[in-house]
Amino acid sequence: MTPQRYDLAITGGDVVLDGGEPTRVDIGVVDGRIATLTDQPIDADEQLDATGRIVLPGVVDEHFHVFRGYPWETYENATRAAAKGGVTTVVDMPLDQPTTVTAAALEDKLAAIEHACHVDYATFGGYLPEDPDEMTAMAAAGAGCFKLFTGGVAPPGMYPGVDDGQLLDALRRAAALGLTTTVHCENAGIVDFETARLQGEGRTDMAAWDDARPWFAEVAAAHTVALLAKVTGARVVIAHASSPQTVEMVAAMRRQGADVWSETCHHYLCSTKDDARKDGRLKWNPPTREADQVARLWELVKSGDVHAIGTDHAPLPNVAGADVWDQLPGAGNAVEIVLPVFATDAIHTHGLTFGRVAELMSATPAKLFGLYPRKGAIRIGSDADLVVVDPDGSKVLDAAELEYHQQEKWSPFHGRTLRVLPLHTVLRGRVIVRDGEVLGTPGDGVHLRPEPSTAAVPTPS
Amino acid sequence: MTPQRYDLAITGGDVVLDGGEPTRVDIGVVDGRIATLTDQPIDADEQLDATGRIVLPGVVDEHFHVFRGYPWETYENATRAAAKGGVTTVVDMPLDQPTTVTAAALEDKLAAIEHACHVDYATFGGYLPEDPDEMTAMAAAGAGCFKLFTGGVAPPGMYPGVDDGQLLDALRRAAALGLTTTVHCENAGIVDFETARLQGEGRTDMAAWDDARPWFAEVAAAHTVALLAKVTGARVVIAHASSPQTVEMVAAMRRQGADVWSETCHHYLCSTKDDARKDGRLKWNPPTREADQVARLWELVKSGDVHAIGTDHAPLPNVAGADVWDQLPGAGNAVEIVLPVFATDAIHTHGLTFGRVAELMSATPAKLFGLYPRKGAIRIGSDADLVVVDPDGSKVLDAAELEYHQQEKWSPFHGRTLRVLPLHTVLRGRVIVRDGEVLGTPGDGVHLRPEPSTAAVPTPS
Amino acid sequence: MTPQRYDLAITGGDVVLDGGEPTRVDIGVVDGRIATLTDQPIDADEQLDATGRIVLPGVVDEHFHVFRGYPWETYENATRAAAKGGVTTVVDMPLDQPTTVTAAALEDKLAAIEHACHVDYATFGGYLPEDPDEMTAMAAAGAGCFKLFTGGVAPPGMYPGVDDGQLLDALRRAAALGLTTTVHCENAGIVDFETARLQGEGRTDMAAWDDARPWFAEVAAAHTVALLAKVTGARVVIAHASSPQTVEMVAAMRRQGADVWSETCHHYLCSTKDDARKDGRLKWNPPTREADQVARLWELVKSGDVHAIGTDHAPLPNVAGADVWDQLPGAGNAVEIVLPVFATDAIHTHGLTFGRVAELMSATPAKLFGLYPRKGAIRIGSDADLVVVDPDGSKVLDAAELEYHQQEKWSPFHGRTLRVLPLHTVLRGRVIVRDGEVLGTPGDGVHLRPEPSTAAVPTPS
Amino acid sequence: MTPQRYDLAITGGDVVLDGGEPTRVDIGVVDGRIATLTDQPIDADEQLDATGRIVLPGVVDEHFHVFRGYPWETYENATRAAAKGGVTTVVDMPLDQPTTVTAAALEDKLAAIEHACHVDYATFGGYLPEDPDEMTAMAAAGAGCFKLFTGGVAPPGMYPGVDDGQLLDALRRAAALGLTTTVHCENAGIVDFETARLQGEGRTDMAAWDDARPWFAEVAAAHTVALLAKVTGARVVIAHASSPQTVEMVAAMRRQGADVWSETCHHYLCSTKDDARKDGRLKWNPPTREADQVARLWELVKSGDVHAIGTDHAPLPNVAGADVWDQLPGAGNAVEIVLPVFATDAIHTHGLTFGRVAELMSATPAKLFGLYPRKGAIRIGSDADLVVVDPDGSKVLDAAELEYHQQEKWSPFHGRTLRVLPLHTVLRGRVIVRDGEVLGTPGDGVHLRPEPSTAAVPTPS
Ligand SMILES: [Zn+2]
Ligand SMILES: [Zn+2]
Ligand SMILES: [Zn+2]
Ligand SMILES: [Zn+2]
Ligand SMILES: [Zn+2]
Ligand SMILES: [Zn+2]
Ligand SMILES: [Zn+2]
Ligand SMILES: [Zn+2]
Repeated sequence: MTPQRYDLAITGGDVVLDGGEPTRVDIGVVDGRIATLTDQPIDADEQLDATGRIVLPGVVDEHFHVFRGYPWETYENATRAAAKGGVTTVVDMPLDQPTTVTAAALEDKLAAIEHACHVDYATFGGYLPEDPDEMTAMAAAGAGCFKLFTGGVAPPGMYPGVDDGQLLDALRRAAALGLTTTVHCENAGIVDFETARLQGEGRTDMAAWDDARPWFAEVAAAHTVALLAKVTGARVVIAHASSPQTVEMVAAMRRQGADVWSETCHHYLCSTKDDARKDGRLKWNPPTREADQVARLWELVKSGDVHAIGTDHAPLPNVAGADVWDQLPGAGNAVEIVLPVFATDAIHTHGLTFGRVAELMSATPAKLFGLYPRKGAIRIGSDADLVVVDPDGSKVLDAAELEYHQQEKWSPFHGRTLRVLPLHTVLRGRVIVRDGEVLGTPGDGVHLRPEPSTAAVPTPS
Repeated sequence: MTPQRYDLAITGGDVVLDGGEPTRVDIGVVDGRIATLTDQPIDADEQLDATGRIVLPGVVDEHFHVFRGYPWETYENATRAAAKGGVTTVVDMPLDQPTTVTAAALEDKLAAIEHACHVDYATFGGYLPEDPDEMTAMAAAGAGCFKLFTGGVAPPGMYPGVDDGQLLDALRRAAALGLTTTVHCENAGIVDFETARLQGEGRTDMAAWDDARPWFAEVAAAHTVALLAKVTGARVVIAHASSPQTVEMVAAMRRQGADVWSETCHHYLCSTKDDARKDGRLKWNPPTREADQVARLWELVKSGDVHAIGTDHAPLPNVAGADVWDQLPGAGNAVEIVLPVFATDAIHTHGLTFGRVAELMSATPAKLFGLYPRKGAIRIGSDADLVVVDPDGSKVLDAAELEYHQQEKWSPFHGRTLRVLPLHTVLRGRVIVRDGEVLGTPGDGVHLRPEPSTAAVPTPS
Repeated sequence: MTPQRYDLAITGGDVVLDGGEPTRVDIGVVDGRIATLTDQPIDADEQLDATGRIVLPGVVDEHFHVFRGYPWETYENATRAAAKGGVTTVVDMPLDQPTTVTAAALEDKLAAIEHACHVDYATFGGYLPEDPDEMTAMAAAGAGCFKLFTGGVAPPGMYPGVDDGQLLDALRRAAALGLTTTVHCENAGIVDFETARLQGEGRTDMAAWDDARPWFAEVAAAHTVALLAKVTGARVVIAHASSPQTVEMVAAMRRQGADVWSETCHHYLCSTKDDARKDGRLKWNPPTREADQVARLWELVKSGDVHAIGTDHAPLPNVAGADVWDQLPGAGNAVEIVLPVFATDAIHTHGLTFGRVAELMSATPAKLFGLYPRKGAIRIGSDADLVVVDPDGSKVLDAAELEYHQQEKWSPFHGRTLRVLPLHTVLRGRVIVRDGEVLGTPGDGVHLRPEPSTAAVPTPS
Repeated sequence: MTPQRYDLAITGGDVVLDGGEPTRVDIGVVDGRIATLTDQPIDADEQLDATGRIVLPGVVDEHFHVFRGYPWETYENATRAAAKGGVTTVVDMPLDQPTTVTAAALEDKLAAIEHACHVDYATFGGYLPEDPDEMTAMAAAGAGCFKLFTGGVAPPGMYPGVDDGQLLDALRRAAALGLTTTVHCENAGIVDFETARLQGEGRTDMAAWDDARPWFAEVAAAHTVALLAKVTGARVVIAHASSPQTVEMVAAMRRQGADVWSETCHHYLCSTKDDARKDGRLKWNPPTREADQVARLWELVKSGDVHAIGTDHAPLPNVAGADVWDQLPGAGNAVEIVLPVFATDAIHTHGLTFGRVAELMSATPAKLFGLYPRKGAIRIGSDADLVVVDPDGSKVLDAAELEYHQQEKWSPFHGRTLRVLPLHTVLRGRVIVRDGEVLGTPGDGVHLRPEPSTAAVPTPS
């Protein structure tokens, strides 16, 4: 028997295997897939030394915006940022211009970005009230999931929201298609009323933004969504749950049989309303919450009631001179910093394990969106999507170093000391980032469809 | 000491005293109030023999429509029906023409009905989006409570619904005024979508009406209402909860601190969807439910999670030739039959006590709407509002004998054998019905305002 | 009609009627029973002016020891103390010499105390492992309820404890007899082990006593009791629950269908372990708890999860020179001070109402032990057992003024300022205490049996 | 680089990797440990073809009796049965003669069985009331865990039971030693009383045994155990939970912070009280339960509230002529049939996955007893303990083919059709059973101590 030759060997690292915690093992890659896990020597064309490092499955960002058609960001740039951040799969939102809520728009988009991406990508479709059958057509055209807004969208006019009847219709259709739906949950009536009220009071301070989008606006919307998930049997992800009350309500609805999941973002865990008050650009939908709420949200991460971390990567620009109401919301370049920012707090402050980090950022997102076990897991046969991190480093985040297209070099986390540092990123066996340097090129990434076989994958519990 | 002389003595009966069960005691009335409870002789100008009977506090109907300004019913007639049914207080809804959502409209209405009513009455105001300050003005003008619709109203155009922002505003205002708000809870988006969908399918059968207003439309709306009750501190009554799921959700929200209460109607307990299918007029908003749901609702009455019975007395006319979608909804003359219909099932089928019947129909409604202990209780100093019932009689309900103005003599419960039969009704010490014969006259009833002193009344738990 | 003449009128007071809160009403008594409640004049042979006072139903002490046969206290003296304290019924424990666990012993005791008591009394029987059928014989002889100890008794040898098999047997028998069982719940194995361990460590400080009887010893025993209550259908009162954890566990078991009730004592609410450490006689079984536990216990009183207050009146003597292990436990003369001590804190510190005080001290104990509505309620036909209190007085408790037989004049609450002060006590229409002066005589009190009719009394919920 | 040579390759199978579900992968073994997982060719000295088969981690039987010193069974024989049944590790109970509750007894036993076992083994110690410090000595001598009985043991006299004080002491000591304690939970008082009662009634039918050991005897004991686990911080396994009520109570106590776990046995899931009635040897402590209880227990397996399957392998002999009370209890040769019996029902009737089977039978037992990840997992570096099964075969269980020493060839599951069939067993890389034929020899198995490093292993949740 001639010795097996491998394309790539990742050696010396502590590897977070599927469902487990770091284990000293080497990884052999053949044809872009993980072929071997071993403590024996691997004879490979290329070596990636991970000694003293943690090897994680590549991050799957289940909530990622590029805003195609707006002049703010490019897929080349945004996915280059992803690669640098250890994110090897993005699930791309449909808030494009034109909006990606028809099969034609989706096909156009897929063609346009076919050679643009540094990392793999799946795509959201949406719901077109005038022609709901487009959902079926989008699924055929490659939509892997759907995105809905409960009522309003910010910035207004960007995307069609749904009322609760359309929500019911959309979830029935998604259930029939077997595809997951992510829903942005803020009760539009409450938010609009409070916004008008506070504007009427002359409020323009940063806290006014947060006050206009209270936790109960999120709970109210998310409860209706979870209830309709239960009624229709649809699988639903509650997008960017910012309030512990929302997560607790979702947990209660799950116990009642709803197939509903809580996603949160690193900025709801790693910053508070007090931080937001210091910077006029720190406005999100929903907003950051008070410190005690954030502490409760961490508890829910620990208890397992928060299921996934998405970035809500949203490269909206600074609007010069705009007040808090007119400024565009968004998290800036989140995809490049989500892993170090979240994992630093998770590991070094809150005592989470790297296994749990991988579950929140890779395995569960992959499972929720039909990409597992191809994505989200270090196991034989899976795509060799990996990120090698320094688990105990130290580096001050400098926004000027981040990838941006037309915008200012800005980050809500500028100046923060990071301890968990992504060093190398591997996409299907190719080292696309080595020591922070991007080696990959646009077009490395391919389009992903949810795989039918994954229907048999056990539900994350 | 000269012997005390009483205006009226009710003797020989088993009396449901405040907070208790039937006790053998006599009642002495002076100046319209209960002056004495005793097992000693009472020297009175007038005697009402209750031997072998149960004496209950007069029923307080907290959910009563006359639809002033529409040509369907008169206050004389409707309150005459109330008196015959043992109802001594009604809380009158504002779905009038013009709608009673301004102080001017309320003052006009109060003046118009001042000499019309056979029984006492309190009045609902509403919320006018264009001028919410009218709530304060209505409270000053005598509104005892407020009525809101979550979104849509049927028949459409009859009354202004609120969106969730207005709901928040209205509940904040009601909390500041210290007044109770009743909310009709059906998610308008869901109901409208399902209605259009079923109409699109050509459905015109009776069940289509019920299918278009599923239980989860009620739960979705009621959850938002309960959540905003919690946030604002307002006391809220969930109107005519038809689904056990709604009542259970309300119970859970109460445990979380919301001051929210579940009202149901006799027709959700004493008839089922199967009954409704037999008669094209048997449509309600919300509709009757399946038999197993009704059974669960009875369990919740027994457990104490249902707090009050309202009638939703709604004398809407038969629309000749109308299909299920165009027919006007409504319970017909409910105020005259609510006591015998509900108590017959409650006592003879479900094993409830007369004490519990009085709590559901008199004490708790009075407490919820600020009328207790003047109303809703047999205790010293309370208004001598009483109904004497035969606890174990037998009489077939004949719709032709019921009080109606212009409409057909119709009842959903026509032909039903009643076992608990109201015989005599006493209003502030006056026997206004004796042996089923109305002795009172229009104008006997007076307008009631919630009393400030009742703030100290212990909350029903 | 000649004017009715009454034996006694209690006039001018705010009366806590059955199930309600203080109401301005006068009470007329005929033949020892409440004949009339009225706001009209009462023509009576004797007047008791209650102007400015609160009139409560006489306290029913469901947990009262005299220890007949021991040289410590007499029934004359102990019930005289009860009368002075506003307690009109005591339920007397069977820890006598000989123990009252046979019909013969009960008959002997009943004959002996027939002319001794100032207030009415019911009597506990017990369980004799050698002849369990004595339970049936005791019920026939007049036992109104049964008392069990889970394992050990302190002082040891005083009374037969039961193991869990005997507990099962006893509860099955009590259920068949329809009588309530009170169980002292401390896990004997745990308490004995910890006692031996701490004695082995040479501990003799006051806290050692408390440490040897930890909260989980109570929870462990009470859980088994509650579980067997559920299995047998017996009604069980958890005696003197000292730990909030016990009360919470009982509440959970009630929701699972066990007919089990939480009694606590004023000393678990009105003193803490810190108080106990200051006085070598302040030892109880179970012991007082830490201040934060006491605060939680008050919360459970407010929430309704604590159902009744018993005194555990236990006039055990000071044993000169005894250390903490040999000193006799007991609450001293609790029956004379339970009302002012508990009500002072309840009303003036914790915001409870007089209605709730009456529920905890009179109505619920009477219901639990089959004495309601004869006892525990101010309503027509009930025994005219009343206590008139000054709701907002001030008096320093002086142990020297308390009734004691052979013992030192001692009280755990000596020196405490009382705000709710019992002034007059009425037993079946006789004023047995007026302005603190005892007017009654031994033999005023009669023996009470649970009344069959009370089976229909609604269960306190 | 010269090609790596492996000692053994298991090829072609679907492998249940640690924490996952069957995946097509090959396994390379070096020096008894899993060295490689791969889909590439493996060059090995020995091949084990698993094509079409499922490869599971070897079963870890956490509840295994041989009864050393009794004349019933030998370690050679019992562990030979284990090997045939796919069990590669047993945790051996201390119910020996003399009892293994001292370090001396443990050392003697370990020396005696050093060359006897076909599979690896860890050993339980116990609690000696007369000298509790022996727990520490036993831990030093190699005890990996402790076994306690709540009160009584059957057969009586076999082993010292503990009272609740000793239980508290033992759990405190186990917590300090960092070792797990398994507790047999049946309330001795209840069982003894019911036994005497039923014997007194002349009952000798099979159901009498079950009736004497009701579900609430288990719940009562297990609650105290769980409460003391919480108080002491000890990790406790509730042995052979037979009642769903027990498992539900344990789940509730876990939510309150107790480190307590529910073990059940295949016979509580795969047979019912009706089965037991048909065969006089089918008596267990605790007994099998009614069919509806068994159905609820399966639900709790599915929900994750049952954590582990033990066998309670207990080769007690048939006592000729004994009635139900005198017959020896026990499950016969359970270790040889637990995997096919449980997995047949789990996979083919109840829809569990092989991943869940491995979790219940291998991973969680290994974690609970400090043996993970050396045992219980197919991952790099773990011992190559494997069982290859036919997932969809068919074979009728013939008791005559089972391993037994002196006893009759008997099984409760004789005649049952098995669908999941163990074919080959691998112990640390040695094929000790191939196609059902035992190739291993006594002494293949080694003694296991819990590894300190496993303290860092994440707790099963
Ligand atoms: Zn969003
Ligand atoms: Zn977004
Ligand atoms: Zn309505
Ligand atoms: Zn209405
Ligand atoms: Zn006691
Ligand atoms: Zn006592
Ligand atoms: Zn056992
Ligand atoms: Zn065992």
